[in-house]
Amino acid sequence: MDYNKKSLEIHEEKQGKMEIRSTVPIETTDDLSVAYTPGVAEPCRVIAENKERAWDLTIKGRTIAVVTDGSAVLGLGNIGPEAGLPVMEGKAILFKHFANVDAFPICLDTQDVDEIVETVKRIAPGFGGINLEDIAAPACFEVERRLIEELDIPVMHDDQHGTAVVVLAGLMNALRVVGKSIDEVTVVMNGAGAGGMGIANLLLDAGVTSMKMLDSRGMIAGGRERMNPYKDALAARINPSAETGDLAHAIKDADVFVGVSKPGLVTEEMVKSMGDKAIIFALSNPIPEIMPDIALAAGAAVVATGRSDFPNQVNNVLAFPGIFKGALEGRLKTITREMLVAAAEALSKMVPEPTAEEIMPSPFAPGVAEVVSSAVKRVV
Amino acid sequence: MDYNKKSLEIHEEKQGKMEIRSTVPIETTDDLSVAYTPGVAEPCRVIAENKERAWDLTIKGRTIAVVTDGSAVLGLGNIGPEAGLPVMEGKAILFKHFANVDAFPICLDTQDVDEIVETVKRIAPGFGGINLEDIAAPACFEVERRLIEELDIPVMHDDQHGTAVVVLAGLMNALRVVGKSIDEVTVVMNGAGAGGMGIANLLLDAGVTSMKMLDSRGMIAGGRERMNPYKDALAARINPSAETGDLAHAIKDADVFVGVSKPGLVTEEMVKSMGDKAIIFALSNPIPEIMPDIALAAGAAVVATGRSDFPNQVNNVLAFPGIFKGALEGRLKTITREMLVAAAEALSKMVPEPTAEEIMPSPFAPGVAEVVSSAVKRVV
Repeated sequence: MDYNKKSLEIHEEKQGKMEIRSTVPIETTDDLSVAYTPGVAEPCRVIAENKERAWDLTIKGRTIAVVTDGSAVLGLGNIGPEAGLPVMEGKAILFKHFANVDAFPICLDTQDVDEIVETVKRIAPGFGGINLEDIAAPACFEVERRLIEELDIPVMHDDQHGTAVVVLAGLMNALRVVGKSIDEVTVVMNGAGAGGMGIANLLLDAGVTSMKMLDSRGMIAGGRERMNPYKDALAARINPSAETGDLAHAIKDADVFVGVSKPGLVTEEMVKSMGDKAIIFALSNPIPEIMPDIALAAGAAVVATGRSDFPNQVNNVLAFPGIFKGALEGRLKTITREMLVAAAEALSKMVPEPTAEEIMPSPFAPGVAEVVSSAVKRVV
Repeated sequence: MDYNKKSLEIHEEKQGKMEIRSTVPIETTDDLSVAYTPGVAEPCRVIAENKERAWDLTIKGRTIAVVTDGSAVLGLGNIGPEAGLPVMEGKAILFKHFANVDAFPICLDTQDVDEIVETVKRIAPGFGGINLEDIAAPACFEVERRLIEELDIPVMHDDQHGTAVVVLAGLMNALRVVGKSIDEVTVVMNGAGAGGMGIANLLLDAGVTSMKMLDSRGMIAGGRERMNPYKDALAARINPSAETGDLAHAIKDADVFVGVSKPGLVTEEMVKSMGDKAIIFALSNPIPEIMPDIALAAGAAVVATGRSDFPNQVNNVLAFPGIFKGALEGRLKTITREMLVAAAEALSKMVPEPTAEEIMPSPFAPGVAEVVSSAVKRVV
C-alpha cells in the first residue's frame, strides 16, 4: 500500500482524523437543562468550592493536551504548527484507541521556550496531563524541565521518554536472548537529539554502566565544540576521560548499538567490529542506520528497527498511551524515572519467551496499555 | 426534574460530558501506517508547503476553541477556569449537536487582558475560529476587539453577540405581533455588562433609533461616575444630552424593555407606565426581572424570558452553532455586524406567523443551524 497517498486521501476525505462527541443525551429541553443551563451551574459551584473536584466532574480527569511547536515534526524538521497538526491528531486518536485517554492537539504559534512554557501553563487548568511532542532539542529539554517544575499535572516529552521506554523494554529482552546482563554491556548511542538523550538517560537509570554517545560530530566529550548543557551533563557522567572519536571507533567491541540518527550510517564492517552477539537498534525511520538483513549477515544477534515490516518494531505507541493512562488514573503530579523503568520492565515481560525475532509485544496485543498503566501506578 | 441534582450526577458518572473520537480506522498495522507514521508525513508535507491546506486536511477547518478565563461564568461570577469547564464542555457538545461544529474547551489560568490575547493567539493555529465565553466586562470587549484585529480566524464573544442575535430575532417578530416598526420604538436596556452591551449595539445596528441604557447606577451618560470607554461610546451615541435617571424614569412610555440584569427589578407599575402594547425581554436567569404572568397582567403584549418553561425562550443555542458553522464553511476571517443582523433576520423568519406566544423558533426545530449559517455566508 502507498501509505502516503492513502494518508493524504483520508485526511482530505475526513478533514482530519478526529471529532468531539457528546457522552450525554441532548435530544430534549430537559436534556439541555441538565447538560447546560440551568443544571450545569451545580457542578460549577461544586468545583468553585474545591478545585480538585474538576478531576471527577469534568474531562480534566481523563484528558491530556498533545502540545507541539512544530519545530521537529517526524523527520520533516521545522515545518511549523499547522503542518504538525496531522501528527498531533494521529497521536490523539492513538491515545483514545489504545488507552481510552482523551487527547486534544494544541499547536503553538511560538518556538520560544519562555512563551511555550507560559502558554502551556495558562491552558493547563482544563487538562490532566501534558504530552509534549515534536519539539526540537535542546529547547525541548528546558521546556519539559520547567513545565514539570511549575505545573501540578504530569508533563512528558514523548519523543524523549516514550521511545526510551520501548527501547529499554526491547533491550531487556534482547539481553535475555543473548544471555548478557544490562550492567555488563557497552552501549553505543548514535544521535543526541530528543530521542537519543531520552534513551541514553533511561538506559543509564536502568543499569547500563558503559555508554558511548555520539552526535553528528562524533563522541560527546567535555570541552568539545558544539556541545550544550544537556550533552555536557551526560558526557560528564559517561565519558569522564573526554574520549573522542567517530562511530567506527566507538562501535568497536560494543555490545549494543542504538541509532536515532540517519539512514545507512552503520556499515557491515562496523557490525563485524562489534562484540559477540551484538544487539542493534537501528531506529532511523523509514530507512534505518543499517538494514536488518545486512546487520544479521554481518553477525548481529538481534536487530530492531522503527518499521512495521521487519521483526522487533520499536513503536512508541506501546508506551505513551499506558503511561498517561496510569498518570491520569493515579492522579499523579509527575511521571518519574522509576515509573518509566517500571513501564519498560512490564512491557518486556509481555513477551514471556523472547527470541531474536520477538523482543517486543505487538501494539495490538490485548492489555498493553493496562500493563503499562498498572506498572506506572505501582511505583507511587 | 431537579436539574442541578441530575446535572451533578451525570457529570460525576460520565466524568464530564464529551470525548475525542477517531474518524478513521486504527485496527491494523496498515491503519496505523495511514493514520500515523509513515503515511501521515504526506499531509504534513502538503501543509508545510501551503499552510492554507490545513483547512482541508486537518480538524482546523471544522473546529473552534471555546475559551474562557472563568471570570463571569453563568450568573455565578468569577469562579475560575476549572469551575467554568462544565459550561465550556456544555457549549462544545451543543456546537456539535446542533451544527456539527467540533469545539474544544480552553480554560485559561489568567484573567489579564494582554495574557488572554497572547495565549489565544499562540494556540490559534489548530483552530478555525474562537468562541470567547463567560469573560467579564469590560475586559471581554478589549479581548474580543484585539483578537479580531490580530487573528485571521473569526473570533466572537458569544455572551455579547449570540444572545444579541436571538434577542434581535425575537424583537423583530414581537414588533410584527404588535404592529410597530423597529425605527420608531423606544428601547430600554437594563444591564450594561457583556450581554447588555452586545444587545444594545446590535439593536442599534438593526435600526433602533431611540434607546436608553441603564447599569446598576441608572442611565448611562457622558460624565457620569462609574462609566468605562465602552459605556462612554454608547452613551455618546444614544444619550447625547446626557440625561440621567433610574429605571422607573427611563421605562416610562418605552415600547420595549430588555433586561439582562437582576431578578425582580421590574415592577407591575413600571410595566403599566410603558407605552401601549409593550414588549418585555426579561432575561435575568433563572429568575427574570419580572415574571411573565405579572407582566402580561400589567398590560405587556409580548414577554420573553431565558427560561424553557415559559413561551418565547431566548436561548443563544439558536445562534452560536449556526454562526460558527457559517464562519467555518465560508472560511470567514471575521464575523461582521451585518452577518449578525442577517442571522437574526433569518432566525425570525423561521416563525412564519409570529404570535405573542411564539416569537422564537424552537432550538430543536429542524434546520436552525443551516438557516443561520446560510444567512451568515450570504453576507460575504
